[in-house]
Amino acid sequence: MQFKLLAKDRGTQARRGTLSTPHGEIQTPIFMPVATHAAMKAMTPLQVRETGAQIILSNTYHLHLHPGEQLVQKAGGLHRFMAWDGPILTDSGGFQVFSLPNKRITEDGVFFRHEDTGEEIFLDPAKAMEIQMALGADIIMNFDECIPYPCDKGYAERSTAKTLRWAKQCKEAHTRKDQALFGIVQGSVFEDLRRHCAREMVKLDFPGYAIGGVSVGEGLELLKLVVGYTAPHLPEDKPRYLMGVGLPEDILESVERGIDMFDCVIPTRYARSATLFTNRGRIRLTNKNFRRDFYPIEPNCDCYTCRNFTRAYLHHLFGANEVLSAILASIHNVHFYLNMMSRIRQAIEEGRYAAFKNEFLAEYKRQDRG
Amino acid sequence: MQFKLLAKDRGTQARRGTLSTPHGEIQTPIFMPVATHAAMKAMTPLQVRETGAQIILSNTYHLHLHPGEQLVQKAGGLHRFMAWDGPILTDSGGFQVFSLPNKRITEDGVFFRHEDTGEEIFLDPAKAMEIQMALGADIIMNFDECIPYPCDKGYAERSTAKTLRWAKQCKEAHTRKDQALFGIVQGSVFEDLRRHCAREMVKLDFPGYAIGGVSVGEGLELLKLVVGYTAPHLPEDKPRYLMGVGLPEDILESVERGIDMFDCVIPTRYARSATLFTNRGRIRLTNKNFRRDFYPIEPNCDCYTCRNFTRAYLHHLFGANEVLSAILASIHNVHFYLNMMSRIRQAIEEGRYAAFKNEFLAEYKRQDRG
Repeated sequence: MQFKLLAKDRGTQARRGTLSTPHGEIQTPIFMPVATHAAMKAMTPLQVRETGAQIILSNTYHLHLHPGEQLVQKAGGLHRFMAWDGPILTDSGGFQVFSLPNKRITEDGVFFRHEDTGEEIFLDPAKAMEIQMALGADIIMNFDECIPYPCDKGYAERSTAKTLRWAKQCKEAHTRKDQALFGIVQGSVFEDLRRHCAREMVKLDFPGYAIGGVSVGEGLELLKLVVGYTAPHLPEDKPRYLMGVGLPEDILESVERGIDMFDCVIPTRYARSATLFTNRGRIRLTNKNFRRDFYPIEPNCDCYTCRNFTRAYLHHLFGANEVLSAILASIHNVHFYLNMMSRIRQAIEEGRYAAFKNEFLAEYKRQDRG
Repeated sequence: MQFKLLAKDRGTQARRGTLSTPHGEIQTPIFMPVATHAAMKAMTPLQVRETGAQIILSNTYHLHLHPGEQLVQKAGGLHRFMAWDGPILTDSGGFQVFSLPNKRITEDGVFFRHEDTGEEIFLDPAKAMEIQMALGADIIMNFDECIPYPCDKGYAERSTAKTLRWAKQCKEAHTRKDQALFGIVQGSVFEDLRRHCAREMVKLDFPGYAIGGVSVGEGLELLKLVVGYTAPHLPEDKPRYLMGVGLPEDILESVERGIDMFDCVIPTRYARSATLFTNRGRIRLTNKNFRRDFYPIEPNCDCYTCRNFTRAYLHHLFGANEVLSAILASIHNVHFYLNMMSRIRQAIEEGRYAAFKNEFLAEYKRQDRG
């Protein structure tokens, strides 16, 4: 995997690059739609591709439980299994496992129970690498401890030390040359811990780095703070991935602080509950205002949904509980995100990122409907 | 609307024709996928088109309740509302209303209650025409009484007389020149009633005729019998539509008896519950046999699903309850039906329909799996 920095913005830390993988080149900054169970919810790979997606993310935890990485490997790997021939990134499974209520964390890994069979499963750096190597994504992630928020500094210190120790073990266990293994920087909201973790992680020399443990729910100000004091400690010539983020405003602020890659379930999850993104903010299509609204979701949008259907039709579909509502809404929302990323890339190339961001947010916050 | 008989089979009543409508030409015999709420369940219009669909059916009853025919009309009609630019047929709403538990049937029409608001609604020939004219389908249907099965002959006689009286009223009330109104032959399982109803209906001179009240649940033998003694009384130069039928074997037997048009929810409904049609019979993809089956649903099928995905992947999607399972399975099943119709048409053109049917059924009944 090769990362090439094509342009840097004037006045902000925003970067424009390309990331080459065995399954094609990715233009950064990029958003990765999430295909949890090796499937984008309510979209075929063809529809995902048509939204402009260049790389998608799939979840190791879910695939380990169903159908199991061995079956995926036997099917010819994740790309072939799910018929997505572009690049794929898998997470390590850590985020999901550490979110479980009944896990047991040790110095070496984490014990949890299979959600269906009740069988005890142990996940550690070696196992996380083994699973991700079998799945065969282009980019795979270190197994780290995701620190809950809020968290006291003592715990955060010990956890960050563990994450660094596990990072070394992941690097040793990872042997597939056609996959890039990214290191993940933890450290909760403590600037010195983040700095320490970033510097130590960089010493291990990964082909890319992620910032973990910054969840959307913690608010935009905290996100700006953590990204702002972590990203500068990551090498300029390696891609930077902010995990699990986020809303359009989160992405815009993070790009400004030097982030290249994002993933989030928000566009598809919101779509299924009738919340659609537009340049003028979000609209909720189940609102009765839209019953007789014969405009597209976004009048200038060129996604399949906006080229063919009205808000009134989508309002009707959501009311009738038709699966097509989820399909069409997901297509629009994912397209919205990817189109935003395309505009972000152009603004960076033109050296006017800050102005673009401000214009985008000013328009976005008008929210005149729904 | 014009119907042109292109070819007749040798030795059976099977017919090959074209039906021209304001939204394009239909090759018959044809199967019409069902888009109840102005939406194919789990498929975009583009995907429906790619399965080979030439005409779809939508339900007047459902559209009258939600979103209402006036809204559809304001949206520019059903074609534009649902972004399907091919031909559409709407039923009259009668079938659904007569299936309701608390309807009240009179000589003039039927009273029922809105399923959400509880409001009393009256549907009669004039109203059924008014709604269907507002929806704007290419082919619309008479408002008839659907006789329950089984039914005593006295009731069937009175009901058939009513259906004939209503047919006249429909014809008088229908004023849109760009729509073809089909007459529906009822008469339950009584040969003399079917013959009488067919002859009287033909006197009213409709551009096409349907056979109603032959539901799939009543069995193939009864279906063959009723179609067999009804179709001969319909004019050769008009299309014949067997409503709500059916399974592949039902369609094959009915084509042999001179039927040109079919509709049924079976391919999409079965798809959503993991039952897939193949040339060797149906398979149930949730069956554990398919967990490690890396073949397509149908090895020689050229639908999007079979070109890209394995049974193992679909088994996984159904297990994970992913919406994509319904999408991919629906694409295959609808394609299977339309491909079968295409083979039927070819066999008739070649004058070897009986042989084709026997070969098809011999292969289809092998059912070696699932």
